[in-house]
Amino acid sequence: MNNISTTPFSVNGIDYNPPAKPIVVICMDGSADEYLDMTMAHDRMPNLKKMVLQGYRGMVRGALPSFTNVNNSSIVTGVSPAVHGICGNFFYDVKKDQEVMMNSSEYLRTETLLAAAANAGRKVAVVTAKEKLRDILSYQLKGIAFSAEKADQAKLETHGIENAETIIGHKTPAIYSAEASLFVLRAGVALIKNGMADFLYLSLTDYMQHTYAPDTEESLAFYEAQDVELGKMLEMGAVIGATADHGMNAKVKADGSPNVLFIESMLTTQFGPGFRVICPITDPYVKHHGALGSYVLVYVNNDSNIDEVEQWLAAQPGITEVYNKEKGCRLLEQPADRTGDLFVLSARDVVVGKTPADHDLKALDGTLRSHGGRYEEMVPLVISHRLNAKYKMRAQGDPRNFDVFDFTVNGTH
Amino acid sequence: MNNISTTPFSVNGIDYNPPAKPIVVICMDGSADEYLDMTMAHDRMPNLKKMVLQGYRGMVRGALPSFTNVNNSSIVTGVSPAVHGICGNFFYDVKKDQEVMMNSSEYLRTETLLAAAANAGRKVAVVTAKEKLRDILSYQLKGIAFSAEKADQAKLETHGIENAETIIGHKTPAIYSAEASLFVLRAGVALIKNGMADFLYLSLTDYMQHTYAPDTEESLAFYEAQDVELGKMLEMGAVIGATADHGMNAKVKADGSPNVLFIESMLTTQFGPGFRVICPITDPYVKHHGALGSYVLVYVNNDSNIDEVEQWLAAQPGITEVYNKEKGCRLLEQPADRTGDLFVLSARDVVVGKTPADHDLKALDGTLRSHGGRYEEMVPLVISHRLNAKYKMRAQGDPRNFDVFDFTVNGTH
Repeated sequence: MNNISTTPFSVNGIDYNPPAKPIVVICMDGSADEYLDMTMAHDRMPNLKKMVLQGYRGMVRGALPSFTNVNNSSIVTGVSPAVHGICGNFFYDVKKDQEVMMNSSEYLRTETLLAAAANAGRKVAVVTAKEKLRDILSYQLKGIAFSAEKADQAKLETHGIENAETIIGHKTPAIYSAEASLFVLRAGVALIKNGMADFLYLSLTDYMQHTYAPDTEESLAFYEAQDVELGKMLEMGAVIGATADHGMNAKVKADGSPNVLFIESMLTTQFGPGFRVICPITDPYVKHHGALGSYVLVYVNNDSNIDEVEQWLAAQPGITEVYNKEKGCRLLEQPADRTGDLFVLSARDVVVGKTPADHDLKALDGTLRSHGGRYEEMVPLVISHRLNAKYKMRAQGDPRNFDVFDFTVNGTH
Repeated sequence: MNNISTTPFSVNGIDYNPPAKPIVVICMDGSADEYLDMTMAHDRMPNLKKMVLQGYRGMVRGALPSFTNVNNSSIVTGVSPAVHGICGNFFYDVKKDQEVMMNSSEYLRTETLLAAAANAGRKVAVVTAKEKLRDILSYQLKGIAFSAEKADQAKLETHGIENAETIIGHKTPAIYSAEASLFVLRAGVALIKNGMADFLYLSLTDYMQHTYAPDTEESLAFYEAQDVELGKMLEMGAVIGATADHGMNAKVKADGSPNVLFIESMLTTQFGPGFRVICPITDPYVKHHGALGSYVLVYVNNDSNIDEVEQWLAAQPGITEVYNKEKGCRLLEQPADRTGDLFVLSARDVVVGKTPADHDLKALDGTLRSHGGRYEEMVPLVISHRLNAKYKMRAQGDPRNFDVFDFTVNGTH
């Protein structure tokens, strides 16, 4: 790799001083620490092990709600949802009176460090498993940005790359597969190898984690295959920072059946009509989780009722946290205008939804495993190179998953 | 091992059907999952690795507050603090108007499964690093119960053992040492080998974890030495269940200095006198944590003030949860009569205390690392043998660290 720019840049109050090495940040979507633990215990992640031994492994706190768009947006901006504005996959636009996906960069309120790195002379590439993330991650980016899901449709003018399948050497994968994530990593390897990128963000998808527990052969083989690609990047001299957007827990009763609280139904039964429940996990990909996560927002038509509803909800078994707007925005770092009157989080083994009719549990490919709440907030952080004194200190206390670029770029030289 | 009783017994609503093998449950005090991760990455826990591969490893939710006496009491009773009554190391006895240690079994409100196992014919032994736990853990126990701290003072009539140092082959260790915990494990090995016990609870101490981060050589060597004893127990055919009472986090600012909120001082400044703050982490062992944890109780003299104080506390940076009595008892599974008017939990990197004069930070042996709050709630569970279908199912959802005896006794046959 020649001519890698080391020009410093600053975004959202954070200074980045990149080394003359390929920088690769990987968001291992849904990678609760147990996935790494279990695969490493089977000696099937030798390259991740090398990273841990040469570099750093620890736990970091993600952004809440512990959803994909929220945390991907935080990772590429370095700031919380209160600042960047992406607080779910889905939200209720009060002004338009519409429930809409939050997949578009029009909802992003701050610039990304990826765009800034490109402006500073780095060859930036974003590869995401799901197309839904591409628009946000590539906001104002002069570089490569495409998804595994639609790799075969990437064009030079719009995606910064064409003939992606040929370059990568793999066909566009099915989105509900291990291959969807592996394609992203293989794309990263190919882009570095071909000198097409030296500053990469690779964002995987969590279909496998929603479907398989850490000790299943499917999961072990999936992480083993990821590790092969890590090895190739390390060989090419990359500095790698790997983290996750959220953890993953089984959301089941003792008999293995889904453990769901339908919040809108419960509120209507208790108080009558007048509630809108928004499930910010909702996305176009239904086989993962049936739009059931451990976090919902409640809009209350009758404002005078809010305190009473809050108290009642907080007393329901399986509900662990209920906040009003002021407290929820502060404690959960949320933007006020895109959140409801009440913020509801559920227990480690519980998901919350709207009404039974709104969720198709038959679409699930396995046990209900999901995320969104407090018990999917903590995720692993692995850095391939030894942390310097300043970042070793910073790794103590309360580091965040969205510090991963800061650690990877600034922490190892 | 001959003549191991398989007589079933029931305690606190849970049925135990012990196999004819030595049962060993270990509470690896303060063992945040990162300690196991890091030592295993260095290939320095081959026996724990064997347990993981042959048996089970996952995360479980501890009892809150995430303190030692609370969780040890839960582990030996199988129930939450709301039932067994031990809700800290230290509490304010309202009736006596005294702040007292909660080290005595007179505060325990339910029987232990250890006493029940002994009554059902098992040879039970409890070995604890710290003497402070012995009285609670040995409540009504017909068996062996002694501490590493005072091993040389154990007598047949009162401890069920004498000449402990000779039997174990090691001298009574200093309490602020790795040896204090290793002695407990070595005692377990010796008791099984000599046919003196076939149902053991081994409770370590967290001086090392308070003092050393997971990637330090001190910590790695400590866990490696623990692993040697695990290996000896496995060789003797023991079924081992290992968990922790709580995790451990650095509680420091960006410069590494202690990150403390002195709650009684803050309240007095804001509202005037009339507050009593209790730090339930307080114990006679001050070098660990300076009596600073991530959980305190507030007693408010002026009852009419409670809501206002709650709101104010909840708005202070670093405070993550504040509950009144009703909500705190419900969500945190606490006994109402031994807790305050307000329950205060702090952030991952923050500890809460009374006033600066009440805490001697100079006594610390290193960086301030502590526990007690939400971010030390999740701990590892490792079972040495393959879980049967019922317990594999139960490991999903929301298993608790105080299910460890249930899993170890019932889950592997």
